[in-house]
Amino acid sequence: MQRVAVIGAGHTPFGNLRRTAKDLFATAARQCLDSVDRGIEPGRVQEAWIGSLGFGGWQLGNLAALVTEHARLPNIPVRRVENACASSGFAFRDAYLAVRSGAIDIALAGGVEVMNDLTPTRQRYWLGVSGDTEWERLAGLTFPGVYAMMAVRHMQEFGTTREQMAAVAVKNHRNGARNPNAQFRKEITAEDALRAPSVAYPFTLYDCCGTTDGATAVLLASESVARELTDTPVWVRGSAAATDHLALHDRESITGLTATVRSGREALRQADLAVKDVDVAELHDCFTIAELMAVEDLGWCAKGQGGPFTADGSTGLDGQVAVNPSGGLKAKGHPLGATGTGQIYELFLQLRGRAEGRQRAGAEVGLAHNVGGSGATCAVHILTR
Amino acid sequence: MQRVAVIGAGHTPFGNLRRTAKDLFATAARQCLDSVDRGIEPGRVQEAWIGSLGFGGWQLGNLAALVTEHARLPNIPVRRVENACASSGFAFRDAYLAVRSGAIDIALAGGVEVMNDLTPTRQRYWLGVSGDTEWERLAGLTFPGVYAMMAVRHMQEFGTTREQMAAVAVKNHRNGARNPNAQFRKEITAEDALRAPSVAYPFTLYDCCGTTDGATAVLLASESVARELTDTPVWVRGSAAATDHLALHDRESITGLTATVRSGREALRQADLAVKDVDVAELHDCFTIAELMAVEDLGWCAKGQGGPFTADGSTGLDGQVAVNPSGGLKAKGHPLGATGTGQIYELFLQLRGRAEGRQRAGAEVGLAHNVGGSGATCAVHILTR
Repeated sequence: MQRVAVIGAGHTPFGNLRRTAKDLFATAARQCLDSVDRGIEPGRVQEAWIGSLGFGGWQLGNLAALVTEHARLPNIPVRRVENACASSGFAFRDAYLAVRSGAIDIALAGGVEVMNDLTPTRQRYWLGVSGDTEWERLAGLTFPGVYAMMAVRHMQEFGTTREQMAAVAVKNHRNGARNPNAQFRKEITAEDALRAPSVAYPFTLYDCCGTTDGATAVLLASESVARELTDTPVWVRGSAAATDHLALHDRESITGLTATVRSGREALRQADLAVKDVDVAELHDCFTIAELMAVEDLGWCAKGQGGPFTADGSTGLDGQVAVNPSGGLKAKGHPLGATGTGQIYELFLQLRGRAEGRQRAGAEVGLAHNVGGSGATCAVHILTR
Repeated sequence: MQRVAVIGAGHTPFGNLRRTAKDLFATAARQCLDSVDRGIEPGRVQEAWIGSLGFGGWQLGNLAALVTEHARLPNIPVRRVENACASSGFAFRDAYLAVRSGAIDIALAGGVEVMNDLTPTRQRYWLGVSGDTEWERLAGLTFPGVYAMMAVRHMQEFGTTREQMAAVAVKNHRNGARNPNAQFRKEITAEDALRAPSVAYPFTLYDCCGTTDGATAVLLASESVARELTDTPVWVRGSAAATDHLALHDRESITGLTATVRSGREALRQADLAVKDVDVAELHDCFTIAELMAVEDLGWCAKGQGGPFTADGSTGLDGQVAVNPSGGLKAKGHPLGATGTGQIYELFLQLRGRAEGRQRAGAEVGLAHNVGGSGATCAVHILTR
């Protein structure tokens, strides 16, 4: 069993970009390779895992081969990994396991999604298919609707307020405004959030993440290669994942995600760390309620206390834990399959002290939390300097 | 680094089944667990990789979570692996790497596809997306058309004949007729093949694989667990994969697949075996020309000699190497994402001497060759008793 490090990371701007999946992924991969401190020949990359839900110019089969070929990573084994919005969180896990096995020394994990190319890819059809088709989507339930049900239940059981949810949006927009890659680079006030058009009660526009194009890529290496190519590797100290019932009605509770609880505990156990040791976390805030549930499920506060914990600033850049310094899915944007390794990118910058304008001072331990759909899949990774 | 063995395998009937993806996968997974010699509790399965191109009742996102939940493998990390028709070949590789890493001891790799549910899944749209969209599909090229171009070129360069291609179909139908899981359980004559309706010159109906529903699953275990649960493990001795240009016009040649050449050589190198040591092989015969090219690309005969090599019986059950004793994609059927682990299933039977009616006598070394699309992706595995 080898130790595994992240030694490079790339990230396109996120937004409505009018660029192809090939172009976006090639940009992220190039930036990833260029970021390696002592440089690396593309030919040294031995294998790649590409997360995508399947947007991106109709190339739904063999997308991984297409985008890696275009990124000048030819001939190597590649595959697409799909777990809805957690696709590249799992791509990262699979790349990690491969390097850890000793079969390869250098792996690329990335993701790409083109969501704003409406006509050919029929995005609304696609998005819906990450929830349970038979019980939810065909009954008319949309993704905002699924999370809105969780939010209403959370409000009823724990007294969570719309203002507390808005605090997530305000914080993440504040962070996103400082991230040059973010889709929405503007600060908002709580009033902006609360008065925005309703999407699905209790959500307004600002409770929901964007519809985003983008690509991300990170490079993983065995310890010996990492030490050859950089003096500042970022170590993968924990990798865990879990699943849950796909349909909400099958779950014991909808005020939290058991897949988050399970994978968070296991990742921390592997790292031999407690959640209070985490300095900076990229959490899956596809809707504001999702971030509140995640800080509870991962253990920063008790179940039901995510609202007050957030409203009092505990998740700010200088709070108990800096949550979503990148702006999160809310403000940085959420190109589904690219989000998981996008989180790793942010932690890579944070743990090397290079997240200009949004740096968590002295960050030594980072946590990435990537959720698929409404919580049927989840991957959690712990990274350290 | 751990040694890895296959200790169980399951396989639904292949055909036009009118069953859901959930139901099919649960059947294959149950049969897989039940096949473990000394039994295994489902709760011991630690992680799963599910190959699918994305058919199967509209559940295109999070399909892996849905089908594993229904198969009573809840809570464990799962993901969908997509590489067109090589999806579960790569799922098997990823499961192998995970067990080899030591992170887990027991992994399930499988695949599922429901292709005959025409209305909701629009299969013809889907199938096309595994070829290059911009250069081929949008120009009107279908999959039979892509392989027909390869066949015509092969005929021109090497004198390959329609009769030699028909010999693949006759052999694979003969084998398939002896496989209770095969979609087409009838023998055909060369005349039947040659006189069947034309699909795309030079292909008739019998040069093309079927449109198939089905699911398959295999169980991988570390050496210690394998020895605990069975006296007859089947060892994974080589695992390799490669990619090639997606669009045919970018390739140096279209009379062979360089991804097959690369992955075949590497898998044999890992196993420290020569191709002549292989007793039984499941090759990716989506079209008859594909099997001829594969026996050349993997090294059983020289480039261009696949036709004579096949026509003289060298790939028959008692020939130099038994190719596609299961009936292959041609006669057993080709439920895209389920084919890769379906090949492993057949080798598992063959290497344990349990392929009743189609057993290769004394088979000790098996090779599985799974191609994605027109050859952009390929995975080769070597298994031994």
